[in-house]
Amino acid sequence: MSDPTTPAPTSSGISRRGLFGLAGAGVVGLGVGAAVDRFALPATASAQENTAVYPFFGEHQSGIVTPAQDRLHFASYDVADISRDELVELLQDWSAAAALMTQGEQAGKFGAVNGNYDAPPDDTGEALGLPASGLTITFGFGPTLFQAADGTDRFGIAGRRPAALVDLPHFPADMLQDALSGGDLCIQACSDDPQVAVHAIRNLSRIAFGRANIRWSQLGFGRTSSTTKAQQTPRNLFGFKDGTANIKAEDTGVVDDQVWASGGDGAAWMAGGSYLVSRKIRMTIETWDRTSLREQEAVIGRTKGEGAPYSGGTEFSEPDFSATGQGGAPLIAQDAHVRLSHPDQNSGAQLLRRGYNFVDGNDDLGRLNAGLFFIAYQRDPREQFIPIQMNLAKNDAMNEYIRHVGSAVFAVPPGARQGGYVGETLFG
Amino acid sequence: MSDPTTPAPTSSGISRRGLFGLAGAGVVGLGVGAAVDRFALPATASAQENTAVYPFFGEHQSGIVTPAQDRLHFASYDVADISRDELVELLQDWSAAAALMTQGEQAGKFGAVNGNYDAPPDDTGEALGLPASGLTITFGFGPTLFQAADGTDRFGIAGRRPAALVDLPHFPADMLQDALSGGDLCIQACSDDPQVAVHAIRNLSRIAFGRANIRWSQLGFGRTSSTTKAQQTPRNLFGFKDGTANIKAEDTGVVDDQVWASGGDGAAWMAGGSYLVSRKIRMTIETWDRTSLREQEAVIGRTKGEGAPYSGGTEFSEPDFSATGQGGAPLIAQDAHVRLSHPDQNSGAQLLRRGYNFVDGNDDLGRLNAGLFFIAYQRDPREQFIPIQMNLAKNDAMNEYIRHVGSAVFAVPPGARQGGYVGETLFG
Repeated sequence: MSDPTTPAPTSSGISRRGLFGLAGAGVVGLGVGAAVDRFALPATASAQENTAVYPFFGEHQSGIVTPAQDRLHFASYDVADISRDELVELLQDWSAAAALMTQGEQAGKFGAVNGNYDAPPDDTGEALGLPASGLTITFGFGPTLFQAADGTDRFGIAGRRPAALVDLPHFPADMLQDALSGGDLCIQACSDDPQVAVHAIRNLSRIAFGRANIRWSQLGFGRTSSTTKAQQTPRNLFGFKDGTANIKAEDTGVVDDQVWASGGDGAAWMAGGSYLVSRKIRMTIETWDRTSLREQEAVIGRTKGEGAPYSGGTEFSEPDFSATGQGGAPLIAQDAHVRLSHPDQNSGAQLLRRGYNFVDGNDDLGRLNAGLFFIAYQRDPREQFIPIQMNLAKNDAMNEYIRHVGSAVFAVPPGARQGGYVGETLFG
Repeated sequence: MSDPTTPAPTSSGISRRGLFGLAGAGVVGLGVGAAVDRFALPATASAQENTAVYPFFGEHQSGIVTPAQDRLHFASYDVADISRDELVELLQDWSAAAALMTQGEQAGKFGAVNGNYDAPPDDTGEALGLPASGLTITFGFGPTLFQAADGTDRFGIAGRRPAALVDLPHFPADMLQDALSGGDLCIQACSDDPQVAVHAIRNLSRIAFGRANIRWSQLGFGRTSSTTKAQQTPRNLFGFKDGTANIKAEDTGVVDDQVWASGGDGAAWMAGGSYLVSRKIRMTIETWDRTSLREQEAVIGRTKGEGAPYSGGTEFSEPDFSATGQGGAPLIAQDAHVRLSHPDQNSGAQLLRRGYNFVDGNDDLGRLNAGLFFIAYQRDPREQFIPIQMNLAKNDAMNEYIRHVGSAVFAVPPGARQGGYVGETLFG
């Protein structure tokens, strides 16, 4: 558990070949004629080939310290009225399909392989010919999986709920919508090609049919954090660099301290896992866009172009919160976001952020329904997300321009052993 | 008007530099200290650099025969209660900003350039450092711009409405939502980087503040057509290749016949323009995914893997609609999509399609809100989209799996001359 796995992407010609390799034979056998499906698919149908392939099996799940991919499809699920055995079977099916898709393969065996042309395909096809595109699929368990809202211990795991998997408290100004919050299970699919991420969520949802239904889901188009030092810092929809001070995978000591769960607190099955907090944060960007540059920079505490702290230097300079300017006023305001979110102001607590920009069309006032889908991984939300967010929710100057509308927390188990499944440490 | 402009992309190191180049001076001048913004932005913050840059000015607007980019942000606007002069000024402002952004520049002058640090920036910043990424911005005028719903001739152009800019008829099974349909103006922003497309729509909406408001908008993540022969055929969310038989820019005779408006019918100002029809088509993908491969292929009339017509051959083989199989049944069914949409079944009419896949989260039954945002360009909808769609709406086997929920039609004027604006042929 000492080293975060940041597997080197392997160059790959892998694509989702072979899905229909034998389908043509089926066609011929059915007398449909000459439509033999030669299936000479090109390696990619996208101009933006991405050859990264990350392992599915391993000590930790991929998609946490993995270099943040550019696109996201995240889905939260409610489990149907099924038994513990059926839940385990779902997790096994999901892991098997995820192990294939992350390697650029189809999601499952193809119906017509055994001549069964009358079955639905076991892969929906829209990622055929596309490379793995850095796909990672990361599974999590919500509090309600352990104990339903009515207190029922549906799956016999109420006693194994980790103490760190708390229900998040109400934060000042929260405007959470139930339909955008919570969930028994979650899947985070990240890829450099949105079609690949969507294909993953769609096929895992298809596989779950009758066993788990999507509660809410979110597409994100632009990552808002870097998770490795080699990545450039991207920008959020406030137009500012985001994630400059994020935990980076190379800082293995920090990752061990802040990201990986210890397995203490009687939840040994979580050792090597992590806790995911997601927040759907709507930005009132039309208001922001009519705000002066002075105000924008003061709110953040950094310059908009370079992203340097207002106390001076360049993007990666440490902010000097004691520096003062004219009249002795602090250069970085007391309510600046960079100050309030800094580890120095939060007992050293940090988060590994993996958020994405989103635009979900517009509201009926003609404003873009846009913002940040915040995702953070941590060792223990009680010591990290919760105190940091309480501090921000009370004091952050940015609050005037944002609205938290969705929220969820999930225990993200350790990675599966080769041939095993995610969740085996809990259910196995 | 004889050659479609398919400008060769120019390799470019252009990025949105300079926006904040003088902001640092402002900071110093204000005594904020050492936070000089050196602004040494890298050329790109994305792993998926795309160096294509397309011209804004020219005979035709870019974004029609331009090689279809991978990502879309489309917005429809309602014009506020403004005068004709104010409308013209909006179109001029939009063209000026589009001319800059498509070349990888910021959307406008920056407030602090003249030391005005108390103004909002003239660019929102989230595309800073990103290359042009093949951005095209294409403007269109809806029927209601010419004559409001109550018959008012707000802008003195009712008499110049082209006969081809018809209100689309009701098609069988249409389930159109008003909030997803129509609009006075539209902007199609296509790019290989979604952050660049979103940045364009957001800044043009910001510029329009008080003059035009978004009526509806749509993000698309995967193109569903090729518009040049060099592009591989992508797949839609049915998992099938889409756009195999699309009009290709290289076929200049077909483009001239089918895409560019003649300027006849008393609408000389539309010469070199085109007519855009958009349809938001929800796919019931959960039903589709539980349908046999046999049924799926019969509905389309093509194989799923290769995309070959059911009459035989490979993807680009011409379908043989007279070919029969066992018992004399046609290999391509009478209600197959490939048959009903073929030019042979539609008096030779074709469309230049430029659609995109979409996933807008999920509905409250846990089904993905997913489908195809259909965009088609044509010389005259009365002879192209309308008869083709009437044929499909009545007979297409695919109708069981789709639902048209949004619809719009726009006159897309010719390109602007250097330094002019889109719409000058109408208003100038």
